[in-house]
This record gives sequence, structure tokens and C-alpha cells, in this order.
Amino acid sequence: MRVVRVQYKGSVFFGALQDDGVVCLNHQLGLKDPIPLADLAILPVVAPSKIICAGMNYRDHAAEIGFPVPDEPVFFLKAPTAVIGSGQPILVPQGVGRVDYEGELALVVGRQCRNISPDAVPAHVFGYTCANDVTARDLQRRDGLFGRCKGYDTFCPVGPWIETDLPDTANLAVRTLVNGEVRQQGNTADMLFTPNEMVSAISRVMTLLPGDLILTGTPVGVGPIVPGDEVRVEIEKVGLLINPVLAAPDADEHAEVPLQ
Amino acid sequence: MRVVRVQYKGSVFFGALQDDGVVCLNHQLGLKDPIPLADLAILPVVAPSKIICAGMNYRDHAAEIGFPVPDEPVFFLKAPTAVIGSGQPILVPQGVGRVDYEGELALVVGRQCRNISPDAVPAHVFGYTCANDVTARDLQRRDGLFGRCKGYDTFCPVGPWIETDLPDTANLAVRTLVNGEVRQQGNTADMLFTPNEMVSAISRVMTLLPGDLILTGTPVGVGPIVPGDEVRVEIEKVGLLINPVLAAPDADEHAEVPLQ
Repeated sequence: MRVVRVQYKGSVFFGALQDDGVVCLNHQLGLKDPIPLADLAILPVVAPSKIICAGMNYRDHAAEIGFPVPDEPVFFLKAPTAVIGSGQPILVPQGVGRVDYEGELALVVGRQCRNISPDAVPAHVFGYTCANDVTARDLQRRDGLFGRCKGYDTFCPVGPWIETDLPDTANLAVRTLVNGEVRQQGNTADMLFTPNEMVSAISRVMTLLPGDLILTGTPVGVGPIVPGDEVRVEIEKVGLLINPVLAAPDADEHAEVPLQ
Repeated sequence: MRVVRVQYKGSVFFGALQDDGVVCLNHQLGLKDPIPLADLAILPVVAPSKIICAGMNYRDHAAEIGFPVPDEPVFFLKAPTAVIGSGQPILVPQGVGRVDYEGELALVVGRQCRNISPDAVPAHVFGYTCANDVTARDLQRRDGLFGRCKGYDTFCPVGPWIETDLPDTANLAVRTLVNGEVRQQGNTADMLFTPNEMVSAISRVMTLLPGDLILTGTPVGVGPIVPGDEVRVEIEKVGLLINPVLAAPDADEHAEVPLQ
């Protein structure tokens, strides 16, 4: 099933994407008929309480950004306010230098858990989606800490849906294209730690809650995006996430945040 | 006003702490009389959508942990699931090596904002509280990334209340005591970036939402805590946060998360 998160007549709910529209999955709302896509707003697939990102989970990527290859899973957090959906623009801030795409397989937690073994992970996963861990590369080197370089509003595109029927994540092509040109061409088989091992390791540190988003790392081939580009993250059997890139407007204290 | 977050008869709300109990601040609940402390459960002061922590915001602390003194505000994120309240135990995981206290002044965002100037910060702050940015120091050095070392459940004690009537944060004593012995004795006057400058800088990266928690950095004097200790963070004119330290139980997949 491909699950989308939508707003329809003032309600926000998950729905099953079908040929003739979206079927509401919240039965309490009493919406039995498919809702045409034109009648609803597609939201980012999750509003996570936290986003946890694997660092250096592909050997060749660690080398290209000059970080050591870890001997156990390492991770950092990304600000939930950075989430946008497919089709929404990535906004490049002024004066931050190079900004990179990082295409990644992401998973959405379905059931609260902690201290779970790798084997127990699939039973706690709601589904899989595509993510782009957008990174201000120059700031990453300058700051050392990742709060700023990874945390700008719009720096976490995810979507376009949550695929709930993925039998396993052992061998999935992960591609990122900029303006139609392939820039990353990886495979989850090359991960240092499998998604199940990564989620298990994270769950030994922090309680995972439904809706939490885990990004499993990016393969080699990261590179810059600039206003005017279009970036696509394609994960085999999962989906295709497309985002235009725009320049962020001048600082505006009254700017509205997109609905999440 | 000292604001606490409480659970009473199934409702969770903010209340004003008074001599004879707590006065509910959610007028829709129709609770006009003070509620005796014995009749309610005190919760952690906030359930933040994100926790942003200043890094190396006191020169002498940067030196003691071997990080460079930053020339602009730097920050990282801490997992919201790490929050506990005053009186709840910090749980030291097994096999992680040294775990340190880091006493800090924290502020709670009151109004959604982004791109605000330092002068505009006070109008967007709900109030101030004490925080302990508990850190697995050995893992911090080993990982490089801060997701694990700062993110364990119980590693973010905050409280005991939110002080809403603090005229300014320019000159406040920040003390941390372990088993009654003073270990940190700093002053916000020694910060590299004032809380207003720090919040302004963060708001130029990410939208801040009501309830978001910002930790303003720790002064020199960090050191280890071990099971059996009691750690106290005292901030002048703000409050006093006390937490016992216990060994984390063996990994238990079914452990309940404390109510947040």
C-alpha cells in the first residue's frame, strides 16, 4: 500500500493512494468513498517527533566527505521543522556557500519501541519512503556540529508516499538525479549497517515513537544544488521524490511556515 | 510566575505554582480553585517539538573539552524523548564509559518565529528554566556526531518550573552540584553569545515553535556522575533542578516510557 498524508475539509489524515484518488484510513472520520486528488492537499508524509539520520553509512561516501568510516552505527538529529513533501521547494539560504543533495532510503516508525533487536525492527516499521538529507556542506565543515548545516527549514524533503509493502531492504537501488542527470547511483547492499541494524542501535539509545523518521545514510556522489535545479531521489520499489530548488526569500519575520 | 506542567484527572495542562497548590492556566477546563500538589502529577515542564543546544558557549568549557571556541553561534539537537522532570532519575546506560552533567540556563519558546533579531527574542520567549545536558563524554569523542552521546532517554532533565518573570539573562549565576559539592560555578555574563543572540541565530535557520526548548550552553567544570549520585542545577532567579542518578536497567523491550 502507498500511504499519503493529506488535508481534506479541515481534517489531516493518512490515506491509501489508489488510481481514482485517496481512501481515508482513519475510519472514525466516516469517509468511505475515494477522494479525488484534486479535492485534497497532499502533506509531507509524516510530522515526526524526531528525525534520526545515519552518518557515513556507505564507505565511499565517508571517504568523499573526509570522515572516518565508523565501526559502529553513528547518527545525528535533524530538525522536524525541516520537513517538506514532494513537489515543495528546497530553499537555499543566502550566504551559506555550497548546499548539497543527499538521497537516502528512509523509514517511518510505526510502533513505539526501545531496545529492540535487528530482527524485531520490521514489526515496528510502518513503511519506507525517499528522503533528501539536504546539507549546507561548507557550514558542516565550519561548525563541526550539525544543527545548522542540516537543520534549515525545507532541508528534509520526504515522500511522496510511505510504501508499506516492502519485503526487505537488502538490495535496493538508490539514485539521485539533478536536472535529469544521475549524480548518485548506490545500492542499499553497500550499507555498512543495514536499516535493521541501524534502527536497533538507535533504539538502544532512545525510545522511538510512531511517526519518527530514520534516514539510513547516503551513498557516494553527493554534490551541489543551486536555485533553478530540480532534484529527484529514486528508491527502487519505494518511490520517487521530486523537489525544485529555489533561493530563500530575504529574511522575513512574518513568513508563514508550510503546513506540516 | 512559576509555571508547571501537570496531569490532573486525565488532563495535562500548564498551571501557576502557588503556596497552596497549582492554579490551572487552561481556562477552558473550568478549574478555578487551586489544586493541592498532592492531588496532581508534576510532568516535565515542556514536551518540545525540538531541543536545540548551544555548543561551546563559554570559552573555558570549550577549552576543557578540547573544542575550538566558535566565532559564531553553533548548535546541535537533542532528542525530545530524553526529557525528564525534576526528581526523575537520570539513567546511566551500561558500557558507555563516562557520563557527565552539564548545567545550563534553558528557555522555552512561547510564540512561533523565524528570522527574528536579538531584540525581538524576549517577546517570543515563554520563560526560563534549568536544564542538564547530560552527555556520554567517551561516546562524544568516539562518535564525532552527537546523536548518541546526547540522546539517551533521561539525558535531558529540565525544570522544576518555567520562570516567566525574568527581566533579563545578562548576569545570572549558574551552578551545578553533585552530592552537595559545587562542581560548576559560572555566570551567564561569561557566555560568548547571549541567549538573545543565540536564539536569533537559531531562528535564522529553523522555525521555532511554542514549547521548543533552547539550552544556552554550559560553563567550565563538567565532570562525571555515577549511579547513586544526586545532581543539582541551580540558576539564579530561575530555579533548582534536582535529579538522582541510577543505573539503567538491563535492556527491556517492554519498558514503559515515563509520561511526557
